[in-house]
Amino acid sequence: MRFFRPSTGGQFAQYSRGFASMEVKQYMQQLGQQARAASRVLAAADSGAKNRALLAIAEAVDAARQTIADANKKDLQAGEAAGLDAALLDRLALTPARIEGVIEGLQQVAALPDPVGAISDMNYRPSGIQVGKMRVPLGVVGIIYESRPNVTAEAASLCLKSGNAAILRGGSEAIHSNQALAACIRQGLAVAGLPETAVQVLETTDRAAVGELITMPEYVDVIVPRGGKGLIERISRDAQVTVIKHLDGICHVYIDDAADADKARAIALNAKAQRFGTCNTMETLLVAESRAEELLPGIAEDLQAAGVELRGCPRTRQVLMGAVEASEEDWATEYLAPILSVKVVAGIDEAMDHIAQYSSGHTESIVTENYTLARRFLREVDSSSVMINASTRFADGFEYGLGAEIGISTDKIHARGPVGLEGLTSQKWVVFGNGHVRS
Amino acid sequence: MRFFRPSTGGQFAQYSRGFASMEVKQYMQQLGQQARAASRVLAAADSGAKNRALLAIAEAVDAARQTIADANKKDLQAGEAAGLDAALLDRLALTPARIEGVIEGLQQVAALPDPVGAISDMNYRPSGIQVGKMRVPLGVVGIIYESRPNVTAEAASLCLKSGNAAILRGGSEAIHSNQALAACIRQGLAVAGLPETAVQVLETTDRAAVGELITMPEYVDVIVPRGGKGLIERISRDAQVTVIKHLDGICHVYIDDAADADKARAIALNAKAQRFGTCNTMETLLVAESRAEELLPGIAEDLQAAGVELRGCPRTRQVLMGAVEASEEDWATEYLAPILSVKVVAGIDEAMDHIAQYSSGHTESIVTENYTLARRFLREVDSSSVMINASTRFADGFEYGLGAEIGISTDKIHARGPVGLEGLTSQKWVVFGNGHVRS
Repeated sequence: MRFFRPSTGGQFAQYSRGFASMEVKQYMQQLGQQARAASRVLAAADSGAKNRALLAIAEAVDAARQTIADANKKDLQAGEAAGLDAALLDRLALTPARIEGVIEGLQQVAALPDPVGAISDMNYRPSGIQVGKMRVPLGVVGIIYESRPNVTAEAASLCLKSGNAAILRGGSEAIHSNQALAACIRQGLAVAGLPETAVQVLETTDRAAVGELITMPEYVDVIVPRGGKGLIERISRDAQVTVIKHLDGICHVYIDDAADADKARAIALNAKAQRFGTCNTMETLLVAESRAEELLPGIAEDLQAAGVELRGCPRTRQVLMGAVEASEEDWATEYLAPILSVKVVAGIDEAMDHIAQYSSGHTESIVTENYTLARRFLREVDSSSVMINASTRFADGFEYGLGAEIGISTDKIHARGPVGLEGLTSQKWVVFGNGHVRS
Repeated sequence: MRFFRPSTGGQFAQYSRGFASMEVKQYMQQLGQQARAASRVLAAADSGAKNRALLAIAEAVDAARQTIADANKKDLQAGEAAGLDAALLDRLALTPARIEGVIEGLQQVAALPDPVGAISDMNYRPSGIQVGKMRVPLGVVGIIYESRPNVTAEAASLCLKSGNAAILRGGSEAIHSNQALAACIRQGLAVAGLPETAVQVLETTDRAAVGELITMPEYVDVIVPRGGKGLIERISRDAQVTVIKHLDGICHVYIDDAADADKARAIALNAKAQRFGTCNTMETLLVAESRAEELLPGIAEDLQAAGVELRGCPRTRQVLMGAVEASEEDWATEYLAPILSVKVVAGIDEAMDHIAQYSSGHTESIVTENYTLARRFLREVDSSSVMINASTRFADGFEYGLGAEIGISTDKIHARGPVGLEGLTSQKWVVFGNGHVRS
C-alpha cells in the first residue's frame, strides 16, 4: 500500500533524487490518508499498548545498534563529501552514547503518565445533564526538523504516547540514519499490535514534500517545526494548519531598584553564561538606574571571566568603560553566543516598555525584593514564562516537570512555553444524560 | 489620532464609499497599533475597572435608545432600498426588545467571574523553584460578523471582560447601527478610565479592510468569524493568524441496539425539531439494524408531525415507505432546515465509521443503556461534544455553564466546542524563585 519502500539494507539511492512533483503530492496524500486512519486506532489505544510499543521500539533500537551506526556512517560520509561544517556533522552523528540516549528516552516516555482520556470538571447543570471535558489526542502531528537524527525517535515517542499519528520529515543529510530508526519504530509498533503507519518517516528528501505536508489540513492537524529561524519562518508563512513554534528567544532579566545584590549577580551570570546557545539564555540585561553603579561592575566581571562580550547603552558605558556601544539592532538580536546587551533603565516601567518592544515573548525575569513590583511584573509582562528571582535558564519542559518537551512555543494560542505531552492533546466536551432533551 | 472619525449624528456618508486601498491599509494598521497598545492596558486592568466599563456601556446604551433606533432605521431603510430579503432585514432590526437584550447582556457579562490572572497548578520542583500557570488575555481579537448589530455589544463585552482589545467588523448593511453602539462603548470605556481604543468598530465598509485585519499578526492575535460558511471559509483560507471557527454542524444521533425506546424517541425529536436552524441540530439519524423496525415508525411519526422531511438509506425506506431516497450528498449536508437523513447501520462500528467520514466534528450523541458501548463512543468519537443519552441541542455555552459564548469551535487547537471567556485567554508559565540558578 505504501507509495514506495526501499528494500531494507539497500542503497537508499532513491532518496537523493527528487520525485516529479505529482509523485510527491501523491506520496504525501497517501501518507496523510494512512496517518489519518492510524490516528483513529491510536486515539482508542489504551496506555498499555502504547507503552508496549515504546518499549519494543527501544528494544528494536538496542538490537539494531550496528545497523543504525552503519546507516549513520553513510550520512556522515555523504556529509563530509558535501562539505558540511563540523558543527553540523557533530549534530548528525549518532555516537554509541547518543543511541543509548535514544533508548533511554523511549523508556522514559513509556514511564510518563498517559494524558489521554483524563476527564475533568464534571459538573451537573440545572438542566440535569452532567458536563465535563475529556483530554484527547490532536490527531495527526507533522514534525519537520533538521540534522539531529535522534529527534526521529524523540518526536515519534511523544506523538505515540499522546495518541497522535506522526509524519516526520528529518533533514535530508540524515536520511539513512532516520530510515534505520524508522525501521525500528515500525517493528516496535507491530509488536504492540499498533499500525505501522502510526509513525511515518518521509522516504524522500524532496523539499516539495514539506510544502505538501504543511498544506494538508484534511490529514494533518498541527505542525511542529524544529530548526533554524529561517526554516520556521517559511513554514509558518505557508502552513494551512496551526504551527507550534518559537522563532527567537530574546530573553530579558530586569534588575530592579529593590534587587538583592547577591541574587542579581548570580542570576545575571547563570542566565547568560550557563549555556550560550539555548533559547532561554538571557540576551539583554536591564538594570535600574539606582543600582547600576553598584551592581554592574561585579556582574561585568563575572560575565567577562566567562568570556562574554558586553554591549551597552550610553549610561551603561559610563559605568563599564570596556563595553562596546549597543546599536538599535542589538536590542532585537538573539545572539546565541557569548554576547550580552546591557541597558540602564529608569525603573520597572521603562523595563517593561523595553520588553514589550523587543522581547520575543519567550522568558523574562525580574530580580527584586519588592512585593508590589514583583506582582506587577508577573501580571503585566506578556511572555510565555515570567519569573521572579530565578534564572531564565529554568524555562524548560524538564525543569517545569513536564517529563518531556517537543518544543517551546512563544505563541499564545493552544500551547505556550515548554510543550510536553499535554500540548499535543486537546479537550473535547462530554455530556452524560438520561434521556435529557432541551426545553 | 484616529484616521478619521465621523462627526456624531452626521450622515455617515463616508461609510459607503470605499477608501483607496492604501488608505485602507493605513487605517487598519493604525487600528492595529492602537489595539495593541490598548491591549497592554486592558491586560493589566483589574476586574473592577472592566466591570465598571461594562455597566457604563449598558447605561450609555440605555440612554441612547432613541439614537440607536434612529441609526438602525437608516440601515433598515437602506436595506429595503437595496432589496435585502425579509430574513436579513429581521436580523438587522434593533427592536426595543433587542436593545433591552443588549443592555441585559452587558450586565450579565459584568456579573461573570473574571478569568484573567487565575493561577493554577503551582508546584515546587526539585530545583527549588515554584512553577505554575497564570491565565492571561490573548491580546487583540478581531471579530468579523454579518448583519446582526447586537453582536457588536456582545462581542465587545466578552473581549473586554477577558482583557482583550477588540477590533470589530460588522456587516456593511448594519454600519449606522454599529457606529451608534460603538459610540456607547467608547463612552463606557471612558467612564471606567480605560482606553477608548480597547474596542474599535471599523468605520469603513470597504471589504479590503477584512483582508488587512486577518493578515496583521503583529497586531491581531486571533480572528473569530461569525456568519455563513462562505465567509468563514474565505477567512480561514486567507488568515495569517489562528481562526476560532466552525464551518458546519453536521451532528449525528446514533440509536444503539441497547437503546431505551422512550429516550431514543424523545432525543430524536428534540435533537432535530426543537430548532431547525442551529448548528447543534441533528442532521443525520443512525439507527442500529436490530431496532430499526421497532423504533423508526414512532420517530418518523413525531418528526413528520413537526414538519420534517425524511431522507433514508434503502434499509430505512423498507421501514419508512414515505421517506425519499437519500443521496451521497445528503450525508454530507448541514440542512439547517426541517430535513433529516436517516441511515440504518449494523451497529456501533458502522455508526462510528459513518460519523468519522461525514461528521463536521461538532456534536454526536449515542442513545444506549450499554455501559461498554457508551464508554467506547465517548472515547472514540472525535467531535467537540460527545454525548450519551442527551439531545445534541445541549451543545451550547450557556447550557454548559460558560455564562456566555463567543462562538463554537470545531477545530481541535486552542478552543473546542462552545467558546466562552476562557477561550479568549491563554496561560503563561510563572516561576517564583529566591535567587535560584540552574546547575
